[in-house]
Parts: sequence; structure tokens; C-alpha cells
Amino acid sequence: MHLKTIDLNSDVGESFGNYKLGLDEEVIPLISSANIACGYHAGDPAVMRQTVTLALNHGVSLGAHPGLPDLVGFGRRNMDVTLEEIKDFVTYQIGALQAVAALQGARLQHVKPHGALYNMAVKNPAIWDAVAEVMAGIDERLILFVLAGSDRAELESIAKRRGVRVAFEFFADRAYNTDGSLVSRKLPGAVIHDNEVVAAKVLKLVKEGKVKTIAGLEIELKAETICVHGDNPKALALVQKIRETLKAAGVAVKPPADFL
Amino acid sequence: MHLKTIDLNSDVGESFGNYKLGLDEEVIPLISSANIACGYHAGDPAVMRQTVTLALNHGVSLGAHPGLPDLVGFGRRNMDVTLEEIKDFVTYQIGALQAVAALQGARLQHVKPHGALYNMAVKNPAIWDAVAEVMAGIDERLILFVLAGSDRAELESIAKRRGVRVAFEFFADRAYNTDGSLVSRKLPGAVIHDNEVVAAKVLKLVKEGKVKTIAGLEIELKAETICVHGDNPKALALVQKIRETLKAAGVAVKPPADFL
Amino acid sequence: MHLKTIDLNSDVGESFGNYKLGLDEEVIPLISSANIACGYHAGDPAVMRQTVTLALNHGVSLGAHPGLPDLVGFGRRNMDVTLEEIKDFVTYQIGALQAVAALQGARLQHVKPHGALYNMAVKNPAIWDAVAEVMAGIDERLILFVLAGSDRAELESIAKRRGVRVAFEFFADRAYNTDGSLVSRKLPGAVIHDNEVVAAKVLKLVKEGKVKTIAGLEIELKAETICVHGDNPKALALVQKIRETLKAAGVAVKPPADFL
Amino acid sequence: MHLKTIDLNSDVGESFGNYKLGLDEEVIPLISSANIACGYHAGDPAVMRQTVTLALNHGVSLGAHPGLPDLVGFGRRNMDVTLEEIKDFVTYQIGALQAVAALQGARLQHVKPHGALYNMAVKNPAIWDAVAEVMAGIDERLILFVLAGSDRAELESIAKRRGVRVAFEFFADRAYNTDGSLVSRKLPGAVIHDNEVVAAKVLKLVKEGKVKTIAGLEIELKAETICVHGDNPKALALVQKIRETLKAAGVAVKPPADFL
Repeated sequence: MHLKTIDLNSDVGESFGNYKLGLDEEVIPLISSANIACGYHAGDPAVMRQTVTLALNHGVSLGAHPGLPDLVGFGRRNMDVTLEEIKDFVTYQIGALQAVAALQGARLQHVKPHGALYNMAVKNPAIWDAVAEVMAGIDERLILFVLAGSDRAELESIAKRRGVRVAFEFFADRAYNTDGSLVSRKLPGAVIHDNEVVAAKVLKLVKEGKVKTIAGLEIELKAETICVHGDNPKALALVQKIRETLKAAGVAVKPPADFL
Repeated sequence: MHLKTIDLNSDVGESFGNYKLGLDEEVIPLISSANIACGYHAGDPAVMRQTVTLALNHGVSLGAHPGLPDLVGFGRRNMDVTLEEIKDFVTYQIGALQAVAALQGARLQHVKPHGALYNMAVKNPAIWDAVAEVMAGIDERLILFVLAGSDRAELESIAKRRGVRVAFEFFADRAYNTDGSLVSRKLPGAVIHDNEVVAAKVLKLVKEGKVKTIAGLEIELKAETICVHGDNPKALALVQKIRETLKAAGVAVKPPADFL
Repeated sequence: MHLKTIDLNSDVGESFGNYKLGLDEEVIPLISSANIACGYHAGDPAVMRQTVTLALNHGVSLGAHPGLPDLVGFGRRNMDVTLEEIKDFVTYQIGALQAVAALQGARLQHVKPHGALYNMAVKNPAIWDAVAEVMAGIDERLILFVLAGSDRAELESIAKRRGVRVAFEFFADRAYNTDGSLVSRKLPGAVIHDNEVVAAKVLKLVKEGKVKTIAGLEIELKAETICVHGDNPKALALVQKIRETLKAAGVAVKPPADFL
Repeated sequence: MHLKTIDLNSDVGESFGNYKLGLDEEVIPLISSANIACGYHAGDPAVMRQTVTLALNHGVSLGAHPGLPDLVGFGRRNMDVTLEEIKDFVTYQIGALQAVAALQGARLQHVKPHGALYNMAVKNPAIWDAVAEVMAGIDERLILFVLAGSDRAELESIAKRRGVRVAFEFFADRAYNTDGSLVSRKLPGAVIHDNEVVAAKVLKLVKEGKVKTIAGLEIELKAETICVHGDNPKALALVQKIRETLKAAGVAVKPPADFL
């Protein structure tokens, strides 16, 4: 019997036209939730179709990964957009992926904003609220992925009011501040490169609900999903290591719709 | 009691960002089916939302108007795309509009390919088949708008095999050849500019199922929907004239989902 | 003999594909410098060609009006871009318009950043510097249009160091703060709607180098070019009024390359 | 002393934003003319700048590689565009790259249409004429790369009338028909995979002006430039082999501006 359950999610479907990005074939078999780009920051309708097929072949749950309309910037540049614009962008992208999934007899499990949109939401919860509002209007079964370490009570309150569920997300290879926020990538030590250390952090989070911060303190952090990467062979090796560590510890890897 | 029923459809939602196109506020109250651009050849998520609102406010049924990915060419330039590419484009665009409609508690009635994609389908029924396949996979209640005068039996057979319905479309202001095809726009007389003549043609089509060709012959032509335009005040006046003529003759204007 | 000389500039060439924007045919005969969109926020290669032709037919000097890569947002949304990205965007757009002009035997006189890029530069002079650097590398005869009321000494120093000239720009229909900055559009009174008042302000600026602020104070403000608009008939009437007022006062309207 | 001289050209600068394509760092040192994507089918302003830098560092001549406006299709899908549209597209793209080159103190040597645009021109010489017209209007020193095996007299006549030069291009790894045209990629044997065979073909072409066709006949074929690829390590190995073979035979590799 599994003592604990956790979701592993990864950004996939980021190829575009003639351009290939990411090792989707390799990483998808290792995860339980796929965040699929929807054509704004990455992805195109053919890539979306192929990625949905790949995920379904491996029993991986489907999620929309909507981004800002900035293909050349990969959705990584903040834009001064209104909440209404964000709702429009997100609606459009979720809908597009829904139809791609429907054609293959599937539906979406979750929504995870991408890149700058995610980061903007972390700083401005009104964006989480806008995304949740849209999700509830489209399909109230959808689960919103939000940053663990953000104000949990506020985000749960937003989700409850909007009528969707949230899954809090842990970034396995990132260092955390004492307040539960991520250490800025501009600071030294923000990204952890030792696979053993990362795997141990994941296990501690899953089993104890705790993370050791960059300052060495232990803080409580609850998360239902862990973000992993499939950009390159080194990233893949880390995902493999995490899976093995979880398995050895009796932790099941399942999509959040199964246990939330 | 209405003796006959016909649908009036028009291409709307073709504005984009700061660019306004078409008199949607004026034409939408006059039609029963709205073909809404989905962002490939025209339209954007905000325009789509506003257009859905406008249509719903006037009880007009919603349809997707998917086009080729050619914004600067307004989807009017043929492109050498595969059937698989077409299916991907159409899926993406229908899905995007579905979500926009869902947020307003509505769903789509129909799909009408736009511009070059429509014209390419008229010449190559495998494209109608590809669109029908996609539609059936997304929502089998969707109705495909196809050109009246095309091979009716073939298109009905395609629709039946795919499991969707078709509505045959008549172009009110266009001249017809004896074989039921449209007179090419490159030829003189292809477009009829006299509103009285156009309205009389519409009435004849609705009541008798016949059209007088450019050569003066009468041919049989069955259609369930009539394409009208809201590009400019003159076009609007024609739609008004058609509505009055239909009303005076006891013909009801209703969306095809009501009578197919 | 003209006692004074001033330039009138306007944003033109903002149509795109099937979308028409602005009354270029009407406003271009009234101005001396045309700021031509270059395809990022508005404009396309065909519109650029047609706009260059129109400007040349009226003896109007050509300028590039580079914007952020945000067509659907019309280049009006701030984006978190680096100086290097800005230099790349501006280089690309100036070059594209240069070739369009070259095909018609002409060359560019000036560069005026558009919308959000202009506003970002007003707040961060490093952006003016980046644009000036690019201009000098492409053609040192190019003149950079900058906001009058900004720190004149700093901008002149930037231009001198980079080896290009600047023309300071006055916004005819905008209210000014005491420090020479524009009153924010979010505040009441930011835009002046009385043509008589606007024309009088222009004349005062040209003849006396002074502007009456929103608080009623008179401040010194030097400008070599005045921004006018051709968006609608009302805007055109204002340009006509300004031209008549200038003519009656013996002020010549000429492009800045003629008098800087 | 070199007995013969030939140009080696390759398509480079095809990365886009976060997407990397091609081994530009490896192939550029091996060629003499770089065909640089200009943002329509591939490339972006930053990639263009980096590619120009790389080419200049290796003494490689710069060329514009304009394509159809179809990023997701990589410019490989034919589009039903007019000659005027083609002239507008090509002007815009050449100009953009010119400015990028100017910022680095360089200018363009040549223009080679990309993908579908190139193939469309091979079938319709009016497209070569349109491109040549644009080139002459922008910079009459520009050299147009055209397919060897096309009607040489006709293309030379077009170039002469327009006032630009042409360089005829040989495809090293492609089989030829008896009429000098390329064997369609849809037919078996269209692409030659044996590096020894390809290198021998190149040498024969350079030294004898002859090519052995797919049917085994020898035909005359004159070319000044040879197209090679840097897509993958295997392609690179072929370029290396070609260079070695040419060197051993006393053939110099130089850009066509040096010997045309």
C-alpha cells in the first residue's frame, strides 16, 4: 500500500512547426500530469495533437499550459496586460486544447499558467482569480496549479469562491526562502544541481511536508504536485532519480484528479 | 403560420485588436446564424468574446468560422496544406470558440470554413470530409455549412458517414452557372448589385427551390441557409430588404438547428 | 519671409492587410513628417509601400515608427524587454522601411518610437540611447524624435555621443505639468478638445517657446516638431486649424532635416 | 594557383527565439556565402544579428534568404500570392537584414529565395524577375541565386534587364533529370546519400561543367555556387568532404562577388 501520493508535472508540447524543443518522448512516461503548450508562447495545433497522443499513450493526465502571446519571447517576458486580456488569452488556449483532447476522446485535468504569466500571478493573486474564473466557466472539474509557498489560505479561498480545485506545486530543483517563496534565479544557489540533494528534498516534502530553506531552516510546505523538466538528458536523469526515490519510499505518483 | 423557414448567416467577429471591420452591431440583429472568426484569418480572443455576447443578446446561433493561418492575407490566399494540417487548424479554432461560448453559457451550432479554405473545399470535397471528421469528434451536434450547388449527394454522404449534419448555403448576391456552381468573381455579372433582384432571387430559392442562372435558365437548387454581408451600409440595406421580403412572404428566419 | 519654422508629424501607415486604420490620404498632405509603422505593432509591407508613395507624392519626409512586437495590442502594452532586444527590434524595422523607401528612390529622415516603446523611453532614457545607437549605425543622418519636456540636456548629450540629431516633440492636444511632462491620460483635462485652444497653444509654443501648464503657469518648452493625428475627421479638422493658424502667423511648416 | 573557383552556400540563421535549428557555428566556417533567414519563415532580429556576426567572423559573405510569411510552415508551403505581394515580402526582408548588417559595418552580397518561394520561382520565372526588380531598386550590387538547370538564357536576360547579376546554383546531394531539372523529392533516388558520390559530382561539375543524370547520361550544367547543408552532423561531414575534395583538386572556395 502506498503511504503517500504525489503528482509529477512537466511542461511539454513546446515544439513549434519545424522546431523541436524538449525530450517529450522521454519525459512523458515519467510524469503523471502534462502541461501542454497551446500555441501562444509555444506549441502549434499539430504539436498539441501529437503531445496529447503521447500523454494518453502513457496514461498521463492532460493540462493546458497557457502563456502570453509572445512566441519569439517564449512567453517569458512580462507584459502589461489587463485581467480581462488574461481571461481572454487563457479561455482561448484552454478551449483550443480541449478540442484537441476531445478528438482523442479525452478531457483536460488541469491548467497551469506558463512562464511570465505564472510569475505575474505569483505576484498578483488577482491573476490566479481571473484564471480560476475562466476555468470554472469552461469546466469546473479543472484543477489550477499554483505555487506552493504562496499564501495558501488566499488561494484556497479564491478557488473555493470560483468553484475549482487547486493543486500546490513544488519546484524540486529550486531553493526556497524562509517565507516559502522561491529564491530568485538572479541569486546564487537558486537552482540546485545535485540530483541526490534534489531527490532528498522531494522525499522530505512528500513525507514530512517540509523543506529546508537556503538559509538552512526547516519550514512547512504542502504540495500536491512537483514540477520536473525534460529539456535535456541531465534533466531527465533527475526525473528518473526522483521517481526511483519515491518508489523506494512507497510513494505513488498519480495525477491530482485521483487524490485531491 | 410560416410556410417556409430559412437561415440567414453572416461572417462576423472579423475585427482584430485595434482594427475594426464590419458592422457587426447592425448585421447581427438581422441574421439567425453568426459565423465567428477564430483568430487565424481575423478575430482575436477579445473580439470573439464580444461577438459571442452580441450574438447571444440577439438570439443568434453561434458558429465557428475557421480560416487558414494568414492574418495579413485575411485567409483569402490558397495555401498548399495537407488534410491533416487542415484538421489541426480547424480543431484548434473550433475549440477556442467553444470555450469562449462556454464562458457565456452557450455552445456552437455550426462550422463554416472561411475564404480560401471554403473555396478549396468546394474544389476538393476531401476537405469537407476532413472538417466533418473533426466536427464529429468534437461535438456531433455541429452543423457543417457547405456550398449549395456542390454535389449534394456526395456531401450528404460525407456528413452521414462522419455523423454530422450539413446545411447547404446559397449566396444571395452571386450569379450561378447552369451546373449550380458560382460564376467566378473574375467574370462580369458575377456579383448582383440590384437589391430588388437579389431579394427576388432569395424568395424564389426559398419558395420554389429554384434559381435563375446567369444564362437565364431556371435550375433547381436547395439551400437551408443564405449568406449575407454586413461589411458596409449598402450591404446592410440588402439584408434588411431580404428580411422584409421574406417576412412579407411568410417565410420564417431561423437557425438551421431549429429545422434541420 | 517666414519668421519661424516648425515640423508637423503624424503616425501613418497603420493599416494592416484587410484592415484600414486612419485617414492617411487626408492627413499626409497636411504634415511635413510621416511616422510610418513598420509591421510590428501595425503596418505590413504593402501598406508601407503605399504609405511611402503617398508621402513622397506630397513632399512629406519619411520616418520609421518602430514598435514593440505586439500586433494585437497595437504596441501599446509595455513589455519587459532588454535594451538589446529593443535595439534588435528597431534595427529590423528601420531596415525594412529603408528598403521600401529605397525602391522608390527615397531615404528616411527620422525615427520615432511608437506607443509603449516611446513611453518606456520617456521613463528610461537608456532606451533613447539604445535607439540612437542603432540609428547612428544604420544612417547617421537620421533624426530621433523625442519628447519635449524630457531632460533636454541629457537627450542632447545622448544624441551627440551617438552621433545623431534629435528633434523635440510637442503634443498639441495634451496638457502639460509644471515640470514639462505630459499630464497622464488617466487624469481629467489630460487631452484638450477645443481646437481654438489647441491652435493657440501651438502658436505660443512656436513663437514664444512657452506652454501654459494645466495649473495655469507658463513654462518654457522648446520643440521642433508637433505631433498631430489623422484618426478621424475631428482630428483632421484640428490639423487643418493648426496649419491655418501657423500660416496666418507666418510660420513655415517644414521637415526638421531642413532646419535642424 | 587555383585552377577553378566555386562558391559554397548554406541556409543559416534559422533559429527563432528559444528554438535552435541548424549547426551554424560548425557550417559557417566551411562556406563562403551565408543565406540568412529574415524573420518570415525563420529567424528573428536577434538571431539575424548573431548570424551576421558569426559569418563576418569567418569572412563569409552575407545574403538575404527571404521566405513566405509562414513561420509555422517554415516557408515550405506554396501560397497563392501575387507578384506584387512577393516584391513587398522580399523588399521588407532584404531591408531588415541590410540594417542588421549595416550595424556591423557590412553589406549584403546576395539574395536567395527560400523554400516554397524558390520552388515557385523555378516554375514561374516571373518570380525571379520580381525579385530581381526589387534587388536592383535596393542595391544593384546584389547577386541573385537561381537554380542551375533552369533556362539559363532566360534568367540571364532577366538579370541583365533588371540590372543585377545572377549566380547559378547546384544542389550537391540531389539527382538531376536529363533536362537539367532536379529529380522530384517524391521519386526514389532524388537525394544522394553517399558522400563520396556527392563529392565526386561536385568536382565534376566544377572542373568539367557536367553532371551525370539519374538516367546515367552526362549533361552540361554550369554553376557558380553549390548549396550545402548544416542541419546535422552527417550533413556537416559532407560539407567537410566537399571542401577537402575541392582543395585537393586545386579549386578555390570563394563568394561569387569575388569572381562573377
